[in-house]
Amino acid sequence: MASNADEEAAGAAPIADRTAAINNDQVDTKDVSKNALKKAQKQERLAADKANKSATNTTKEAGRAEAKKAVNKMPKKKIEGAALIGIDVSKEEDFSAWYQQVLTKGDMLDYYDISGCYILKPASFFIWEEIQQWFNKNIKSIGVKNCSFPMFVSQDVLEREKDHIEGFAAEVAWVTHAGNSKLEKKIAIRPTSETVMYPYYAKWIRSHRDLPLRLNQWNSVVRWEFKHPQPFLRTREFLWQEGHTAHIDEQGAGKEVLQILDWYADIYQDLLAVPVIRGRKTEKEKFAGGLYTTTVEGYIPFNGRGIQGGTSHCLGQNFSKMFGITVEDPSAREGEKKPPLHVWQNSWGLSTRVIGVMVMIHSDNHGLVLPPRVAEIQVVIVPVGITAKTTEAEKTSIHEQVDALATVLRASHLRVETDMREGYSPGWKFNEWEMRGVPLRLEFGPGESEGHFVTTARRDIPGKDGKGRITVQDLGKDVPALLDTIQADLYKRAEESYKSHTIKITDWDDFVPALNNKNVCLIPHCLEEKCEDEVKDMSAKKAAEGNDEPEDAKAPSMGAKSLCIPFEQPPEGIEEGKTCTNPNCKNLAKAWCLFGRSY
Amino acid sequence: MASNADEEAAGAAPIADRTAAINNDQVDTKDVSKNALKKAQKQERLAADKANKSATNTTKEAGRAEAKKAVNKMPKKKIEGAALIGIDVSKEEDFSAWYQQVLTKGDMLDYYDISGCYILKPASFFIWEEIQQWFNKNIKSIGVKNCSFPMFVSQDVLEREKDHIEGFAAEVAWVTHAGNSKLEKKIAIRPTSETVMYPYYAKWIRSHRDLPLRLNQWNSVVRWEFKHPQPFLRTREFLWQEGHTAHIDEQGAGKEVLQILDWYADIYQDLLAVPVIRGRKTEKEKFAGGLYTTTVEGYIPFNGRGIQGGTSHCLGQNFSKMFGITVEDPSAREGEKKPPLHVWQNSWGLSTRVIGVMVMIHSDNHGLVLPPRVAEIQVVIVPVGITAKTTEAEKTSIHEQVDALATVLRASHLRVETDMREGYSPGWKFNEWEMRGVPLRLEFGPGESEGHFVTTARRDIPGKDGKGRITVQDLGKDVPALLDTIQADLYKRAEESYKSHTIKITDWDDFVPALNNKNVCLIPHCLEEKCEDEVKDMSAKKAAEGNDEPEDAKAPSMGAKSLCIPFEQPPEGIEEGKTCTNPNCKNLAKAWCLFGRSY
Repeated sequence: MASNADEEAAGAAPIADRTAAINNDQVDTKDVSKNALKKAQKQERLAADKANKSATNTTKEAGRAEAKKAVNKMPKKKIEGAALIGIDVSKEEDFSAWYQQVLTKGDMLDYYDISGCYILKPASFFIWEEIQQWFNKNIKSIGVKNCSFPMFVSQDVLEREKDHIEGFAAEVAWVTHAGNSKLEKKIAIRPTSETVMYPYYAKWIRSHRDLPLRLNQWNSVVRWEFKHPQPFLRTREFLWQEGHTAHIDEQGAGKEVLQILDWYADIYQDLLAVPVIRGRKTEKEKFAGGLYTTTVEGYIPFNGRGIQGGTSHCLGQNFSKMFGITVEDPSAREGEKKPPLHVWQNSWGLSTRVIGVMVMIHSDNHGLVLPPRVAEIQVVIVPVGITAKTTEAEKTSIHEQVDALATVLRASHLRVETDMREGYSPGWKFNEWEMRGVPLRLEFGPGESEGHFVTTARRDIPGKDGKGRITVQDLGKDVPALLDTIQADLYKRAEESYKSHTIKITDWDDFVPALNNKNVCLIPHCLEEKCEDEVKDMSAKKAAEGNDEPEDAKAPSMGAKSLCIPFEQPPEGIEEGKTCTNPNCKNLAKAWCLFGRSY
Repeated sequence: MASNADEEAAGAAPIADRTAAINNDQVDTKDVSKNALKKAQKQERLAADKANKSATNTTKEAGRAEAKKAVNKMPKKKIEGAALIGIDVSKEEDFSAWYQQVLTKGDMLDYYDISGCYILKPASFFIWEEIQQWFNKNIKSIGVKNCSFPMFVSQDVLEREKDHIEGFAAEVAWVTHAGNSKLEKKIAIRPTSETVMYPYYAKWIRSHRDLPLRLNQWNSVVRWEFKHPQPFLRTREFLWQEGHTAHIDEQGAGKEVLQILDWYADIYQDLLAVPVIRGRKTEKEKFAGGLYTTTVEGYIPFNGRGIQGGTSHCLGQNFSKMFGITVEDPSAREGEKKPPLHVWQNSWGLSTRVIGVMVMIHSDNHGLVLPPRVAEIQVVIVPVGITAKTTEAEKTSIHEQVDALATVLRASHLRVETDMREGYSPGWKFNEWEMRGVPLRLEFGPGESEGHFVTTARRDIPGKDGKGRITVQDLGKDVPALLDTIQADLYKRAEESYKSHTIKITDWDDFVPALNNKNVCLIPHCLEEKCEDEVKDMSAKKAAEGNDEPEDAKAPSMGAKSLCIPFEQPPEGIEEGKTCTNPNCKNLAKAWCLFGRSY
């Protein structure tokens, strides 16, 4: 690294790969880095002490135990030569432990002392705020308004719609006491707000003029699942938005269902660089109590599992009949008697699960990889080439220039951090910012200063291949452009992976092998619930089920579920008279249906 | 109203007071208005039916009973000649019922079937979003970051800090069951998040470099109070923000405490047009477990009660000692051994209570009055002067011009609504928009069209005094200016009222009479807890206490509490040797302290 200035001075020399030392765990031999190493070791010890103390002092709840278990497992499967504070479990060896480390070491999340509850730290909450802002702007453009309903719901109201509550009953958290007093009746914490809100829709909707009524809430809901929890993907409390709308007819409701679904797809694809497939859920998988459910389905390349990304439901008139939400028929002429119309309703929700999906897809063995559009820090500038021989004046000059570069970039509306910390080597800093997923690192030292350029290092392409140069003069234009390229490339790679692992299968014998090869499968299917159950059974390996291992370890043994009936069907359609792909099913195939092992 | 066009055509005619008919409940005799009346009567019947049905179908919970009780009470005290759908209880006759009607008929809030929980409808949630946006921008400028902690807290952790939990214990809601399973240990819903967050501060803060740590959450908390609930002011679940920060020293913490308090004052004064007094809480009234509490205190002119507006606490080192949040002393030299430093902490919170305070202060017997800066609809344009004789072409032309006016105003970044509904008279519409608090109404009819102007009607000054004209040409400039004037005038009136009702008292005999005259009182006080208790006792009328009446009815019998020790002390200071104003107290007075009956 000391040779950097010389290299650059030579002109056409190759771009310095300052990450090499770190990635191979060859610690810098200069004084400054010895200090950093000592500090890091000490900090690591302190942190471990504190965490242990905290775990002991606090409670012995399952959540803590869960986190500790995962922590204790880690050392078994270390990445060869991993840096001291870096990710030390590889994605390939233990996906679950890797995912947890990426989130905790990347400063996105922390484990909480109640199992299934997690702390969203600023880096992940920032992403949620970006999504909120984007989605609010769009839904407000069609007249959706935000509001806030209570988190509590009485038992009577919660259980009014039978199919609906059946889907949630086992997971409802109940409040029974306040202070030392027992409540007269136990009160539920909402698992979702249909039954919380609709008695009031019945009251508020007086005439067809009040339609469409479109309300949305950003809140948290509680579903006390007993399966193994996983940050962002399966949590007992989670943040989401839930939209609840009422329309005069099926057409208005149906149009909105698709509009919202498109925006969900945009959030995944445009903001998070995550490709999704749009489609309809089968009867078996649709929302309990609704008419039909549309969904965006994602794909985790590493284990080949599908993941539900967000759902937009048409509830039809089921809830409006249950809750008596009616208007007079506006088509009735003066004096004419027509029966009242039950309104058509939708509900749609997107949760912080999106963040987990994004992390699983893009991140690597160095840590988080964040798409520039949602990264809290888009660019970090690290001064380099400062050695023991550098004079104080030279160092000051470099630091001042780094500040000036940051100012230029901020004027281009970029979110920029500079890392002037003393006592840490550049490589050390690179490592930390990589772990935290910052999309673009700029290096600036005497060589760059002399040559009027910055060295760029893309987070999404580690090592030399991801390095380049931008002249200082073009900074305000080329850095945003490079971030756009990174965003587009992240999406492109994920899309290629999803496309190449979405396999059309028409012969059952190919189905399980395709799943085992980490594919999701499009099969001609009858769409019957009973048949789906069979497909699931037949594609599962019985022996391994039911143990308490994290699900990722179980994945290869899971049965396949239907993910959706994609809107975009294969152009050849379904052959006339073709039966369902399940060899035990005699029904005609109705559509290409996407099946997969899934979250 | 039919004469409007003629009037205006005559040129210098006085500004039409189109509200007169409504305010005197003289319903328009034209066909169009007969229809509206019939419709309204029918809608009123339907709504009453629905509400009754809903109440019966739903649950017989206290919340419903509470709302029904209030509703049943209303007809007793009708405003003479009140319009059919308008506010029918005057502020003067029954403040509590009036407040409830202003909120429900103004479309801000609805009662919920669980007592003490309320639905924030879009009009009030919009105000909260405006506050969020403004406050986020400010706190982010000093490095505060938003995040999200779980709503649940284990009993052990909740009860770690004894003084602190004592302040909340009686109101904590406990979850004991999930589905049909009893939880191993009951789990609390956070009443506030100090003990939720600080175990993690202990883990995350490793070095003085990690300070200041400044996190904020926008969430809801639950305090299951058993006193009579009141929308926005005393609710069992409420929305708020809670900031929790850690600093290396008292100075950094103290500076932030005041900065946040200033922003709370700005939210009240600049956004909501509500004057507040800044000060410090006495030992008796400070936050349980904290070092000192600063506060903004508001004043409700109608009943002369003080109201706590928002608090910014310095927690000192109490929690950091309890939770072990320490850093190494950065002043220690190489090799020197210094004891670890316990960090200095702050917490600060502002809740949706702000909305209730704003409503109580500005609203009147026609309904809500919203300050323009936070009103979801700032301007409503109502077409007028359309009679049975108006041709279809003339009507279309007026409507098109109204649309064009709206476009001009929206280009000036105003939030504008037009009301082209058929079958409702202008007066009817005026009434509805007044009830909903829209700050400025523009009337536009044939007269205005011909004269190239709009007639303006200020919500804050009902009747002729609030009317004026703006030429179409000046619309984009003069309407925003008029809204600014309305905002400023609302504040000015409220401030004059607060100032004139803040009375300096040095003789105890004047104290209770001053309270009875709806004043808050500055008295030289010893600031001792025991003395405060005495002052409260001595200023209360015993007999009326403890009944279940809404508090507003009880107010005159309440004892006075200390509201704050204002930062801005009367310039004359405290006379040397002056004893406390409480005649039974022999202590020296330490400061002018603000006392009042309060919420």
